[in-house]
Amino acid sequence: MVLSPEVRADRKVVFRLLAPQAESVALRTTDLPAPGGPQMSKGENGVWEVSVGPVEPGAYRYTFTVNGVQVLDPRNTLTSESNATVHSLVYVPGAEFMDANKVPHGAVASILYFSKSLDRNRRMHIYTPPGYEAGQEKYPVFYLLHGAGDCDDSWTTVGRAGLIMDNLIAAGKAKPMLVVMPAGHTSAGFGMRGPGGGPSRDEFAEDFVNDIMPHVESHYRVLADRPHRAMAGLSMGGGQTLGIGFSHLDKFGYLGIFSSGIFGNGTAAWEEQRQTMLDDASLKDGLKVLWFATGSEDFLIQSTKNTIGALQKRGFKPVCKETSGGHTWINWRNYLHEFAPMLFQ
Amino acid sequence: MVLSPEVRADRKVVFRLLAPQAESVALRTTDLPAPGGPQMSKGENGVWEVSVGPVEPGAYRYTFTVNGVQVLDPRNTLTSESNATVHSLVYVPGAEFMDANKVPHGAVASILYFSKSLDRNRRMHIYTPPGYEAGQEKYPVFYLLHGAGDCDDSWTTVGRAGLIMDNLIAAGKAKPMLVVMPAGHTSAGFGMRGPGGGPSRDEFAEDFVNDIMPHVESHYRVLADRPHRAMAGLSMGGGQTLGIGFSHLDKFGYLGIFSSGIFGNGTAAWEEQRQTMLDDASLKDGLKVLWFATGSEDFLIQSTKNTIGALQKRGFKPVCKETSGGHTWINWRNYLHEFAPMLFQ
Repeated sequence: MVLSPEVRADRKVVFRLLAPQAESVALRTTDLPAPGGPQMSKGENGVWEVSVGPVEPGAYRYTFTVNGVQVLDPRNTLTSESNATVHSLVYVPGAEFMDANKVPHGAVASILYFSKSLDRNRRMHIYTPPGYEAGQEKYPVFYLLHGAGDCDDSWTTVGRAGLIMDNLIAAGKAKPMLVVMPAGHTSAGFGMRGPGGGPSRDEFAEDFVNDIMPHVESHYRVLADRPHRAMAGLSMGGGQTLGIGFSHLDKFGYLGIFSSGIFGNGTAAWEEQRQTMLDDASLKDGLKVLWFATGSEDFLIQSTKNTIGALQKRGFKPVCKETSGGHTWINWRNYLHEFAPMLFQ
Repeated sequence: MVLSPEVRADRKVVFRLLAPQAESVALRTTDLPAPGGPQMSKGENGVWEVSVGPVEPGAYRYTFTVNGVQVLDPRNTLTSESNATVHSLVYVPGAEFMDANKVPHGAVASILYFSKSLDRNRRMHIYTPPGYEAGQEKYPVFYLLHGAGDCDDSWTTVGRAGLIMDNLIAAGKAKPMLVVMPAGHTSAGFGMRGPGGGPSRDEFAEDFVNDIMPHVESHYRVLADRPHRAMAGLSMGGGQTLGIGFSHLDKFGYLGIFSSGIFGNGTAAWEEQRQTMLDDASLKDGLKVLWFATGSEDFLIQSTKNTIGALQKRGFKPVCKETSGGHTWINWRNYLHEFAPMLFQ
């Protein structure tokens, strides 16, 4: 049996695919450096192979391209869904904050709820902290949104959200909380209906406010008030966090925007739509954290800066963290790890 | 963008794969009839296609074989893990008992627990019924085991266990209960360490009794006594149910064996290992249901019959249901649908 992927102790990862009849096999990955180039070499036994790294600890999505067809690794049961397809997933351990350590683990559940706004069943993922299932305590809720390329499964697979929360909670660095990860796309395909650039009806915002939040607050033991509600998202999800968060500023005490800003041309229309909330001085104090993080190589860094400028002019005090790197899951996992400890303190 | 799979209103399913450079593409599936043969035809646009059915409503795993390499459908995000690989999954609706209907839905969580028996983190899936997360009630527990080709994910993907339970509970046909779906394999690969045929140390039985059950009973609001514990499994999981169930008959009030029986050569050694429990007349009354179901075309039908004969000789009253069909998920979903309503009544 072919072993793939093989994660070695020196953090080199060897990918293998049995394909004796193939003419070309390449490794396709977003975040993994492939110093030898993505092309794989064929051995005498028909097994194509490439060794990558040593790589930084982390979760990496990959596929093979066999004669032009994108395929998953048939020897790996670990997968990660994105918006339009599914990837194989490899985890390279060694980063304590997201390793599966010997600490109490929460549960990540897949949930179906009926969305009245969209008139159909929708799926979301919900992390409950260690102790939830047997306890009686009420918990704060952190809504965590994915990006345009992803889906509600992504934060718990490639994003390691559950394990990051487990480790933070075990270390006493984050409060125990629910993390709700809804599906940000409302139609098939890549079509984004985000605030700013979307059509007149913002389907996700309706679903979020009228269905997702009420579902969570009626089906889970949660603290359903502003000081105990947080929202963050990456890229498209950052845009949704800004859009929904500032349209319902009375409902959220903590907002996090990862690799994102206000979408569309400038911020004027966005601000106009939310004028009342933006001008209401009484709401500003209750926004305990307004945190932006974007990599210096991220194509949305300027959008982040423009948004921060616009919010500062309105009297908000956003915190901006410019990190290294680009629009990658490497950064988003780090941002979650940094943002979650600020919540509900 | 290529649409695949396309499930048509007449329950025909069209599978498509964009592979302009491929020389052969075939559809590979276990339970789906492919009347035109598995080979797919290439259209002028480089899209290979095959139409199957009309097929019976149900969940079907499939892959494509492209120039000899087994690949998932890159246009389908639905997947189902098995023991050694992962499949694309298509659901053909129309069977009310397993459709995603407009009823209250439970949650299916993925859980990590630390197994002291095996000295590592292990994963299991747990279904909690509608109302669990906000409630205070204690529930009975049904342990549901997979087969040798599968893993702890399989019952909730291809097996539709969560949806089958949702529908039964909504109709008042089954009691609300937890369904715990552990990982029956303890080593990589297909290697089975089941009762009867395994090595002297039964790793899964140790993990089940010393780690899985205690974890569930300390982390969930459950009724932890014999009248509120059930176990069932298919194939290898049926063997494990027999092995663990009759070694701990004082702990289980309900046992279900799907497409299985005692493994190995005859039942003598198996019976000898469990002599005390089998001979203890006081334990027989508390076994409220002992239910076997196997298809007449199943290669384990004789094993089922031998096991039933052996248990009858020991004074048990097994109920045996011989159905049509073979060793398939079509039968296992039906068996779950029939078995769950008998529990905890």
